[in-house]
Amino acid sequence: MSPMVIHRFWLSPNVKQVLGSGDLGTLSAILKDKSPNDLADLMTDLAPSEQVTVWHHLPPKLVVDTFQYLVPSIQQRLLKAMTPEEAAGILNAMSPDDRTVLLQTLPTQTSQEVLTLLTPDERAVAVSLLEYPADSVGRLMTPDYISVRQNWSVQQVLDNIRTHGHDSETLNHVYVVDDNGTLIDDIRMRQFLLAGLTQRVSDLTDRQFVGLRATDSQEAAVAVFRREDRTALPVVDEKGKLVGIVTVDDVLDVAEESATEDIQKIGGTEALDEPYMEIALFQMVKKRAGWLVLLFLGEMLTATAMGFFEREIARAVVLALFIPLIISSGGNSGSQASTLVIRALALGEVTLRDWWKVIRRELLSGLALGSVLGSIGFLRITLWSAFSDIYGPHWLSVALTVALALVGVVLWGTLAGSMLPFILRRLGFDPATSSAPFVATLVDVTGLVIYFTIAAVILSGSLLS
Amino acid sequence: MSPMVIHRFWLSPNVKQVLGSGDLGTLSAILKDKSPNDLADLMTDLAPSEQVTVWHHLPPKLVVDTFQYLVPSIQQRLLKAMTPEEAAGILNAMSPDDRTVLLQTLPTQTSQEVLTLLTPDERAVAVSLLEYPADSVGRLMTPDYISVRQNWSVQQVLDNIRTHGHDSETLNHVYVVDDNGTLIDDIRMRQFLLAGLTQRVSDLTDRQFVGLRATDSQEAAVAVFRREDRTALPVVDEKGKLVGIVTVDDVLDVAEESATEDIQKIGGTEALDEPYMEIALFQMVKKRAGWLVLLFLGEMLTATAMGFFEREIARAVVLALFIPLIISSGGNSGSQASTLVIRALALGEVTLRDWWKVIRRELLSGLALGSVLGSIGFLRITLWSAFSDIYGPHWLSVALTVALALVGVVLWGTLAGSMLPFILRRLGFDPATSSAPFVATLVDVTGLVIYFTIAAVILSGSLLS
Repeated sequence: MSPMVIHRFWLSPNVKQVLGSGDLGTLSAILKDKSPNDLADLMTDLAPSEQVTVWHHLPPKLVVDTFQYLVPSIQQRLLKAMTPEEAAGILNAMSPDDRTVLLQTLPTQTSQEVLTLLTPDERAVAVSLLEYPADSVGRLMTPDYISVRQNWSVQQVLDNIRTHGHDSETLNHVYVVDDNGTLIDDIRMRQFLLAGLTQRVSDLTDRQFVGLRATDSQEAAVAVFRREDRTALPVVDEKGKLVGIVTVDDVLDVAEESATEDIQKIGGTEALDEPYMEIALFQMVKKRAGWLVLLFLGEMLTATAMGFFEREIARAVVLALFIPLIISSGGNSGSQASTLVIRALALGEVTLRDWWKVIRRELLSGLALGSVLGSIGFLRITLWSAFSDIYGPHWLSVALTVALALVGVVLWGTLAGSMLPFILRRLGFDPATSSAPFVATLVDVTGLVIYFTIAAVILSGSLLS
Repeated sequence: MSPMVIHRFWLSPNVKQVLGSGDLGTLSAILKDKSPNDLADLMTDLAPSEQVTVWHHLPPKLVVDTFQYLVPSIQQRLLKAMTPEEAAGILNAMSPDDRTVLLQTLPTQTSQEVLTLLTPDERAVAVSLLEYPADSVGRLMTPDYISVRQNWSVQQVLDNIRTHGHDSETLNHVYVVDDNGTLIDDIRMRQFLLAGLTQRVSDLTDRQFVGLRATDSQEAAVAVFRREDRTALPVVDEKGKLVGIVTVDDVLDVAEESATEDIQKIGGTEALDEPYMEIALFQMVKKRAGWLVLLFLGEMLTATAMGFFEREIARAVVLALFIPLIISSGGNSGSQASTLVIRALALGEVTLRDWWKVIRRELLSGLALGSVLGSIGFLRITLWSAFSDIYGPHWLSVALTVALALVGVVLWGTLAGSMLPFILRRLGFDPATSSAPFVATLVDVTGLVIYFTIAAVILSGSLLS
């Protein structure tokens, strides 16, 4: 009875069979009882041509809602399969915030053509939303909210909601504006329901409210929503004029998308911007190859660095055995540190001016972690040497070299990994660019230099003499 | 005038000065005009003893709201500084969902003591919420919602909201239940506002609704909210009885927290579970050391593997020069693949049964990426050899060895990285455990074997003869 998440899993194969059999009557019958988001989910799982077939058999009254739940790439495909009249009908009926999402993903040319399909009113709304910068709060806004004046009575407010409320995205708050449209308060709907009908709006205002600026970044909006525990917030322009509202369901999408971007960058790839299963293979390879090649070029410096130490390696091959162990320990500790700092910066737990506090914490952490690994490394070499002579007669010096190199490399990796996100943000880049592989590559080269320098000092009297 | 995000940045230093000067009159005056979440932010930035001082000077009517915005660790500190009466007052007034978050972080003993401070009614609510499994939807629920019966008139519904609505977390939806309390529909508030006052609730029901089960996982709830674009959803027990609602602001917190956990795991550390700047240094080092030591022990196998090839390295030191380059390329491509798959699994874009599709994509990606890096490596060695004899007389064989090893290692890294998250999920572990460093370590050992095996085959007639 209760239409839970499970639906998604049995819906699709069923329809796929019917589509295969070409029985379009049954198809319409199946589609008739579904909700718009079930229909959108279903279409997402289908092949492009099947999506168009299903589209043409949707119950007419669910067409607009279903369209709004689809991702832009499928929306574009369907738009191409529609007559201009059909497209105009859907685009005019879409809620302005969902329409903005679609319009901003279209090529400029197509976007202009689509705008001409809109009625003058809707076009004005659409154009004004598109004027806000990409990734700004303005692009998330809907102008469908309830605004009232201070001198209205509660009765007038309720009548107004009855007349205009059906367009509003949320009824939890009513916004109070003055004659210039400047936002002066937000009032919870429940206050109107609890108040006497003859009371004035001005009796309920306390002129305290939280708002967003249309030009604020979407990630700033996520932080405000997280802090305020609200389901919708009003948006004002530079002069404080109320221009729309943002609802938290769109903010949830933004939060999930920016977490996805950060995660992908931390993994050492460009953000895909499309679901993994939907992005074209060539596109994905391109986005991964960029960083991989860059890291490869950086890592080539390790070959150069090792070239300088070729003499030492030839004389003490045993040193070569520990190269992967030592450089990877630096890389691992560096990617731990950078990942923790990237996320803390993204959540606003840490700001740029905290760099000094972070460096102190990481200095201590790096020393502690380096000492732990160094001790294990030392033990391993001394224990093994008790039973075999794999590490040669100078095993104690080798053990000491490896242990000290580990302390140095882990400390250096930790410091570099924690500071890199700060430096990137300071320079105006995304801190998440200091991905685990990026930090690892950076630390690999310096790790080799640290290792061989320590080896030269400690082993100069014995193995390398 | 408009209290935007910026507040947070000038509030704290100001108060810190006043606290330093001990001028408690000024402190009260400053605190008087702040909103509860400003106050909570402010306290978060202060030292523990300062938090308690500020707490004792809060305006009485903001005490409960401010408390609800604080993180559990600070809430616990304040509770300890309160008299039982004070604590009882606050705990009884808290909204049930926020209270659950606090109670579940307390040690069992303390949690039991806190429960005794509650009134019998509130205690019953608190205990019932705590009975749901950790990380289940039940723990996010609040029992404050509006439920109505089918035979009520719209007038009755509105009167009911006027009487009971002040406790409800949202007014966007009203829930219709039958005599057994079973949820049979959700109706948008706007429908009541638009309907005639004498209409019956049954005239408005369509018996279509989306709900969550109290035992569903919180991450499943995030997926449903993302799909449904709703600000609140009803929660039912196994029998379909309405037991509460979940609002999207709590879901946003869950989404952000689980992204944080995934990001930290991908970076190769245990999830911190506390903000970076707040977790005790020793705790953080412990959480990082665990994985770092495990990876270090795994990476020790590289030393073992290289031990087997010591003879080859001694004879052809030039081979050692490319070790970091080759194994890191495998690690980087592996961490790309694992990160993409981890996130796709977390978002539900990919499910377990898609493993075969993923392996096909990654096979092609890995071949393409390996060929790109292999070509670059080949070019680099041949170009350098045109000008110097750093790579010796057999430079062409060396170039070929490195190029083929790169193709093999990148392909292997990509496949291992993409399949590991599937294997972990299949075994019941969190896919995010297949972190970038974990995959890199795994690939390092096998990468060495691939490299030296290819070298042995290609160079057996020349350098290694």
